[in-house]
Amino acid sequence: MILLYHLWLSPGCRKVRLVLAEKKLDFEMQIEKVWQRSSEFLALNPAGEVPVLIDEDGSKVCGSQVICEYLDEMYGPAPMIGTGAVERAEVRRLIQWFDGKFQAEVIANLVDEKIMKRFLGLGEPNSNAIRAGGRNIHVHLSYIEWLIDRRTWLAGEDMTLADLTAAAHLSCVDYLGDVPWEDHPAAKDWYARIKSRPSFRGLLADHIPGAPPPKHYADLDF
Amino acid sequence: MILLYHLWLSPGCRKVRLVLAEKKLDFEMQIEKVWQRSSEFLALNPAGEVPVLIDEDGSKVCGSQVICEYLDEMYGPAPMIGTGAVERAEVRRLIQWFDGKFQAEVIANLVDEKIMKRFLGLGEPNSNAIRAGGRNIHVHLSYIEWLIDRRTWLAGEDMTLADLTAAAHLSCVDYLGDVPWEDHPAAKDWYARIKSRPSFRGLLADHIPGAPPPKHYADLDF
Repeated sequence: MILLYHLWLSPGCRKVRLVLAEKKLDFEMQIEKVWQRSSEFLALNPAGEVPVLIDEDGSKVCGSQVICEYLDEMYGPAPMIGTGAVERAEVRRLIQWFDGKFQAEVIANLVDEKIMKRFLGLGEPNSNAIRAGGRNIHVHLSYIEWLIDRRTWLAGEDMTLADLTAAAHLSCVDYLGDVPWEDHPAAKDWYARIKSRPSFRGLLADHIPGAPPPKHYADLDF
Repeated sequence: MILLYHLWLSPGCRKVRLVLAEKKLDFEMQIEKVWQRSSEFLALNPAGEVPVLIDEDGSKVCGSQVICEYLDEMYGPAPMIGTGAVERAEVRRLIQWFDGKFQAEVIANLVDEKIMKRFLGLGEPNSNAIRAGGRNIHVHLSYIEWLIDRRTWLAGEDMTLADLTAAAHLSCVDYLGDVPWEDHPAAKDWYARIKSRPSFRGLLADHIPGAPPPKHYADLDF
């Protein structure tokens, strides 16, 4: 069976879980405390980061976008990155938007400050960072709304890895109760569409010991 | 003709230039001073970053890895990202290593501090950052040597986008004269192989007004 090394509130790991579920691939998950820098794990991935996927034949694949491209090339049914070079470039542009900009402007300020610091015993969250993350997320939700006003899904008429990537990131912030859905009703509608997909169930069942999610997190009618 | 919006010492832009040259595609370049945040450019790429490529048919493609995947899907002759999902995953893992880790640990500390700060009038370079970049680069050169000790090129038996990506990053540091080649002879041999490719000529001809490269930069026998 496919094995996925992961961490709970890692958007990259969640994105891979969504793709595996969309492709109806069975997989097991193993938490990897990357900060312990175990030599066994560093031998798997010298970058020392999750996600790492071990395929059934033993192939090891490192990094969230690399894994998603690999799964799309290896496994059906439908391509998650779209068809046609121009469409694929638009899907990948939006993936990069969330894995790059959203990660730096929102995830690092909210999730890393509130959760990672606490679990690693790195002290109190930086309140300036949390305020910045809270401001920045509006820009991204507005951008989602701008896209959804023009398209059915973020990258076009079909649901793609761009939607799954954006939703994986937002789901981490939503686990903290920090997504201002009320200010962005169109983004909320789009998220509700993704959240109700069967592939999302695993994410909604996550429950980190000592850091339970707010009530609305797993509610499809939030 | 293909148009590439770029900046001189951007590893991502250099990587795209190498791929275009390897594929023997004619292109024009236009400098985009991204810090001016012109509305015309933001309309092309809302992320406000280079590289952005406008293909002959008007398709716009944003972001260095997105552009390289696009060019590989659109244009021959040989795929730069390898063949077979496992091989492609290894190429992409190494690309991510350099675009992620090398960028953060070396480029941000050396190139951004020494060049970008100066051109943007952001004050003196941070000497701690420069020292950190100077220490970090050894790890990456050693990793290149570890790979080259086991393989002909970074990702396997063929030259791929992993080599071009690593070389594009190193070429920016080499423009500053900050690559400690003498401590890493095997990495130097590998770089010499890439540097002597016809696709590299454009990069070696770069000459930034007010910041000339050291003498060895364009020398194939450095």
